[in-house]
Amino acid sequence: MRIIELNESSRKKILENLLKRSPHQYETYNETVAQIINDVRSNGDEALFLYTKKFDKVDINADNIKVTDEETEYAYKQVDPKLIDIIRKAKANIEEFHIKQKQNSWIDASKEGIILGQKITPIEKVGVYVPGGKAAYPSTVLMDIIPAKVAGVKRIVMVTPPDKDGRVNPGTLVAAKEAGVTEIYKVGGAQAIAALAFGTESIPKVDKIVGPGNIYVALAKKAVYGYVSIDSIAGPSEILVLADETANPRYVAADLLSQAEHDELASSILITTSRNLADKVLEEIENFLKTLSRSDIIKKSLANYGYILIAKNMNEAIEATNEIASEHLEIMTKDPYSDMTKIKNAGAIFIGEYSCEPLGDYMAGPNHTLPTNGTARFFSPLSVDDFVKKSSIISYNKDALEKIYKDIETFALSEGLSAHANSVSVRFNN
Amino acid sequence: MRIIELNESSRKKILENLLKRSPHQYETYNETVAQIINDVRSNGDEALFLYTKKFDKVDINADNIKVTDEETEYAYKQVDPKLIDIIRKAKANIEEFHIKQKQNSWIDASKEGIILGQKITPIEKVGVYVPGGKAAYPSTVLMDIIPAKVAGVKRIVMVTPPDKDGRVNPGTLVAAKEAGVTEIYKVGGAQAIAALAFGTESIPKVDKIVGPGNIYVALAKKAVYGYVSIDSIAGPSEILVLADETANPRYVAADLLSQAEHDELASSILITTSRNLADKVLEEIENFLKTLSRSDIIKKSLANYGYILIAKNMNEAIEATNEIASEHLEIMTKDPYSDMTKIKNAGAIFIGEYSCEPLGDYMAGPNHTLPTNGTARFFSPLSVDDFVKKSSIISYNKDALEKIYKDIETFALSEGLSAHANSVSVRFNN
Repeated sequence: MRIIELNESSRKKILENLLKRSPHQYETYNETVAQIINDVRSNGDEALFLYTKKFDKVDINADNIKVTDEETEYAYKQVDPKLIDIIRKAKANIEEFHIKQKQNSWIDASKEGIILGQKITPIEKVGVYVPGGKAAYPSTVLMDIIPAKVAGVKRIVMVTPPDKDGRVNPGTLVAAKEAGVTEIYKVGGAQAIAALAFGTESIPKVDKIVGPGNIYVALAKKAVYGYVSIDSIAGPSEILVLADETANPRYVAADLLSQAEHDELASSILITTSRNLADKVLEEIENFLKTLSRSDIIKKSLANYGYILIAKNMNEAIEATNEIASEHLEIMTKDPYSDMTKIKNAGAIFIGEYSCEPLGDYMAGPNHTLPTNGTARFFSPLSVDDFVKKSSIISYNKDALEKIYKDIETFALSEGLSAHANSVSVRFNN
Repeated sequence: MRIIELNESSRKKILENLLKRSPHQYETYNETVAQIINDVRSNGDEALFLYTKKFDKVDINADNIKVTDEETEYAYKQVDPKLIDIIRKAKANIEEFHIKQKQNSWIDASKEGIILGQKITPIEKVGVYVPGGKAAYPSTVLMDIIPAKVAGVKRIVMVTPPDKDGRVNPGTLVAAKEAGVTEIYKVGGAQAIAALAFGTESIPKVDKIVGPGNIYVALAKKAVYGYVSIDSIAGPSEILVLADETANPRYVAADLLSQAEHDELASSILITTSRNLADKVLEEIENFLKTLSRSDIIKKSLANYGYILIAKNMNEAIEATNEIASEHLEIMTKDPYSDMTKIKNAGAIFIGEYSCEPLGDYMAGPNHTLPTNGTARFFSPLSVDDFVKKSSIISYNKDALEKIYKDIETFALSEGLSAHANSVSVRFNN
């Protein structure tokens, strides 16, 4: 963690350094990923099982690939009942928030003889990728499945890599069941993405794939984009705290560390107008590091992608904040609501000193699957909108079309499209 | 054009045949496209100008790449004033429809001490690709720029390939100006997509790229997806007419032909419960073909991708319609509104015999940039939503966080994330 003065040149360097964390940096793996995808597309289950043997070191076949009711029941016995209660509380909050995102179909029938509108339909089949091993987060399972359920998706197909004994993390199974998953298959990696995109004998072809994964999963999602839809290409996690002299340095330090522990590519940034705060935050970080279990990871991520940036004034601080476009943004300033109105690019905005980032990760309700790596400039948090699609509705009666058909004819002919012109004129010329 | 009975096996074959039209079939060009992109990314304008010389056979440089006010003024003189009036009428209708799509930011402040919400922000910079040559459609320029403008995008950067004399289609220039473009550059192809995604000395880096193009443009858009956002990967146009014995065969035939004229890969499909209608439509098509200017293209597209499908009943017809998921769907049946409620997958739905597809292409108001090639299963028409992004808002006060912080702590620790747990507990333990 270093303290740096914000200026044109430091901003440019920092932005460049942060982009090194992008999954796009690994495009040399594209060939390997393309090979896996083509193989699964051509050879279905056979290829899928071979890759699972190769990468996950476990024999999966058509009989044991699908998680059974018994396995799920057993998972419920393995998970602390207290945690199951918390998962249910979280689910209720997540559901409540996402229900508010639901859009209605609408029509405009204000002009005689004309109905125009937008029809909303849930996507029929959705695939949810859930990482295995140490990155198996039940909270993410809730965040990925609940919006699909709220949207009205009929079939929610989860895939997740099994461990060497062919088992799936029990917390993952409980969260999936609570969230309303339809079926779960024990496969992971690029091969699981290929199976969801093209279907195999065991795995149904879906319309959209969501959920985070390692670099192979990220590149596979990009490769199948267009055959199916995807949520986004997820990069490492990040937090940006925007703070002035009124912020509590202990809270700021704790929150920066909470993202730094995710992995060595995570990024934690403080932008502040107060040099005094910067110094104190650095001190608090040193203190916390003595006690935190993942301090090795934290130290590496802070060394590589951690910054404390000193801004001359709040305007400059906010400008840099918008430029970095962080996944998580905490605002701890005198007037955080007013500052929020100036934020253009951020996945989620946490306002005030009691709105710490982990609140959003687990319990508040808004989705924690958020745009990373500067993509908050154009991507949004995962939402109910991701699980529906729209169809336009156009209906004119004869009178309404008659008033306008000559314009259509002229416009079409100007573009050289005489069959387009014919399609309107045939209805009036005899 | 052939008449085929709908059944399991014919459906499967037809779907496979239609997918041959997908841009994904050309992934062998990916290497060429990647090379162009990398070159423009590394060498900026220099590479951009070289490719323009190579592909468009014209010398473009930093001084003449940007369309000047004089060029736009001259374009207004070249375009028929009657057409300019029609463009303005179309613009008013498109604007009126898209304004209805605008979503508001919202908050939920119903629980004491808690504010949750969703903030909508326009994307700052958008690139619009407009094809040149014969595929230069002023109507598409309106459809791509107006939603961005309605969304509040500040900078709308258009690119379009120049002709051999370094000029741009005057209709394109007029439509762009009327729609509210910010600036226009004379470049096209994969090199223009690369310039928009990464920026060059002349072309600003944008956040999202929209608009149709040839196969190189489509693959380039997929390649830069993630660095920027894109609207979709556009494939050839298509129409599906769902009709029963009440439909007018002359109108059905004219509408099928209107899409077939686009290009040889276009697809026109009639699904009907009436053998009698099928025969008559075929007759009408033969008649029309004698007079239409683009009959060579039409004959090829009908031969390759045109179908008249006979369904045993309306349920089977609708099921096949949903399976094909056409870009444009016309419903000409006894009860078209009731049938519309059963449609799950379609870009735009035209209801009743006076709602012909070209009405939607030019004047009605809904967007004509629509999901093609079966992607209506998961993609939507271009809309104002494409030009905004969302940020979640999370704000808890001390009391609200205190009630829930132990749950967050437990959940975080169950996932092995002690720094997450620390971020909440530090606010209450001293």
